[in-house]
Amino acid sequence: MRVIESVESSVKNLSEYCTQLALQAKAASRVLVSLKGEVKVAWLRRSAELLRENLQAILQANRLDLEAAPGYGLTDAEIDRLRLDPVRIESIAAALEDIAALSEPIGQVIHSTVRPNGLVINKVRVPLGVVFFIYESRPNVTADAAAICVKAGNAVILRGGKEAIHSSQAIVDQLHAAARESGVPCDAVQLVETIDREAVGYFLQMPQYIDVAIPRGGESLIRRVTAEAEMPVIKHFNGNCHVYVDESADLRMALAILENSKCQRLGVCNATESLLVHVDIANEFLPLAGNMLESHGIEIRGCERTCELIPRAVPATEEDFATEFLGPIISVSVVPSVEDAIVHITRYGSGHTDAIVTHNLLAAQKFVAEVDSAAVMVNASTRFNDGGEFGLGAEIGISTDKFHARGPCGIEELTSYKYTVFGAGQTRK
Amino acid sequence: MRVIESVESSVKNLSEYCTQLALQAKAASRVLVSLKGEVKVAWLRRSAELLRENLQAILQANRLDLEAAPGYGLTDAEIDRLRLDPVRIESIAAALEDIAALSEPIGQVIHSTVRPNGLVINKVRVPLGVVFFIYESRPNVTADAAAICVKAGNAVILRGGKEAIHSSQAIVDQLHAAARESGVPCDAVQLVETIDREAVGYFLQMPQYIDVAIPRGGESLIRRVTAEAEMPVIKHFNGNCHVYVDESADLRMALAILENSKCQRLGVCNATESLLVHVDIANEFLPLAGNMLESHGIEIRGCERTCELIPRAVPATEEDFATEFLGPIISVSVVPSVEDAIVHITRYGSGHTDAIVTHNLLAAQKFVAEVDSAAVMVNASTRFNDGGEFGLGAEIGISTDKFHARGPCGIEELTSYKYTVFGAGQTRK
Repeated sequence: MRVIESVESSVKNLSEYCTQLALQAKAASRVLVSLKGEVKVAWLRRSAELLRENLQAILQANRLDLEAAPGYGLTDAEIDRLRLDPVRIESIAAALEDIAALSEPIGQVIHSTVRPNGLVINKVRVPLGVVFFIYESRPNVTADAAAICVKAGNAVILRGGKEAIHSSQAIVDQLHAAARESGVPCDAVQLVETIDREAVGYFLQMPQYIDVAIPRGGESLIRRVTAEAEMPVIKHFNGNCHVYVDESADLRMALAILENSKCQRLGVCNATESLLVHVDIANEFLPLAGNMLESHGIEIRGCERTCELIPRAVPATEEDFATEFLGPIISVSVVPSVEDAIVHITRYGSGHTDAIVTHNLLAAQKFVAEVDSAAVMVNASTRFNDGGEFGLGAEIGISTDKFHARGPCGIEELTSYKYTVFGAGQTRK
Repeated sequence: MRVIESVESSVKNLSEYCTQLALQAKAASRVLVSLKGEVKVAWLRRSAELLRENLQAILQANRLDLEAAPGYGLTDAEIDRLRLDPVRIESIAAALEDIAALSEPIGQVIHSTVRPNGLVINKVRVPLGVVFFIYESRPNVTADAAAICVKAGNAVILRGGKEAIHSSQAIVDQLHAAARESGVPCDAVQLVETIDREAVGYFLQMPQYIDVAIPRGGESLIRRVTAEAEMPVIKHFNGNCHVYVDESADLRMALAILENSKCQRLGVCNATESLLVHVDIANEFLPLAGNMLESHGIEIRGCERTCELIPRAVPATEEDFATEFLGPIISVSVVPSVEDAIVHITRYGSGHTDAIVTHNLLAAQKFVAEVDSAAVMVNASTRFNDGGEFGLGAEIGISTDKFHARGPCGIEELTSYKYTVFGAGQTRK
């Protein structure tokens, strides 16, 4: 076990340790800026091979985490997400190969203009620099995040949940072995090897070395990072997602979309937490919806009209409408119009994902134009707001910010740009 | 004089005043999201007309500012930038018409994908929301910033330098009159009508209403805003810009680019502050450069070799190389190679604008790839890093950030995007 125990006894050492990682990351990021794409591809492919070849070492490290998990008070669902097996390690390796196959982003000319004076102005994609990524106890995320950050030309400092630290170390060991073989600097991927929570604070105070902080996980973590970070933050906040069933909706379609949005996976950010139903179809739709939701064991907290139409529904409070349940509960409200649905979503929603089910084109256009969310769905499940489903190839998360990156964050969202201007001696008039 | 004197005697009132402006801006921004482009165009054109029709009222307000200017200790150059005359007001009006003529940005589909399951995923340009813009005592910027923010669908809170407040009020009066006629909400453009510096702090604490803060002006202002702001900030920091003259440069071209970069305007962010010269051409180039710079009254602070070759040069300190002089001083260093020029720029530069003069393609490619600045010029003046020169139509400033917006910030940089997903009942597998 390499966790730096001694570091935790001394704030000075911890501060020095974090600064050293940050400095190394910055130095690696300077190399990555002009590293050829084929070197990154070779690294990703060799990493995938080494993960497969060193399956047993990774599983053994994972066993250490699993043995410690009850001591950390993890739930069964959390322990399941922590667990690795040969199938899961194969899917981690395959994901690295998928990222290797994506086209090289760095140096791509995003836009080009020729000015009247002959200057050729290119807007060229460049890396952000150093990413500080804070995430849950999921070993697969360690590999994914490292791959996507480096593919985008960034060095990354990985701060995973302490419950997965041995698994993450075993995975990073393979990434480092592949880096040594392929010519990627090892410091392009660094794992924070202390579980001391103070470490996060030190990193957040180094805007001179770290270009962006990306926290993923609980709301309190994200609030802490946002408050403390001296560099930009890409936030992955709540998903209080809505399905609005318009008066013109096909009720079978509405039922299928609601079932998929709410019941397919309860604990994810793009799961629906609230159902809005147009008053003119409430009589017909809500009893059907009630039966379907109850068949999945979902508790219904509804407005007055909902409670009349679904006998087992309980009255919803103001707070219920503002809550991301991440579990087997849904809030339901009957609304008089699409305008009122939009007002409700603007008031209680979190700007993540909201869907309308409708056959009315004007209602769809209005909903799409006025709902201010990262993704607005028309006749499709909220569960589609996802980098893979959007075809981005890979994602580091789903941003609820409007600044820099919104919605699924893939490789492009981990880059910036610069302007290159080619002249033949032009001077400004 | 409408400056709210009474507000300044009461922090509670000031806080309420700022909150009221922010709330009004947020409400206006909701209207702007789906305002038709032609309404914004009509507003901009009518604003231009009203500025011309009300020339005398604006000049009279400007006289109040000019009379007060010596009391604020403004320099002659600052007073000149504050001064309005019929020609300058015409150019403000013409700029509004130019912005009116730009294509409508909001609703534009930036990217579109059709997924294998038939979902049509559009990435659509949307406004950021509310912009809080803090700027210098330049009345023309009041009109420009209002126009570009609203064209991008944002409400703006304008906090201009106190020395220009009467001129800015007179201009905003015309924008409001045009808004009433054309159907743009008046609160889309609000001027902070108190000169109390505390007001800035209140606005920076309202991330729930204000989506981005854009400070322009001195470094201390920008540092304060960055430290206090609870919303994203687009920073316009130092321009410690370089011209590097490579061994293969055409010396006449190099001299012309240096003269334009350094001497055309001394006090602007894209003016050059430092000259780097390859050792193999220093003997030939530096005496020429010395004569040219001295003919413009520029003081030369150089390395040892520079001082040998330019008799009137004085020795440069470490700090000189890190300084944005914004005046008639230049630092000069002889470097052994393009690599060393890049190392020098990485160490002392501010990531704003850096130029290479060369006939060597590999040197140009290396410089462009490795200099991490918003704009990298090849055989062109650093003075070209400008929204107008880049063809953006208008700019609110030049960002030194890498996050969200880099380099000249035009209308697109004041927008975000959302994903709209159109299906026919798709659910996720």
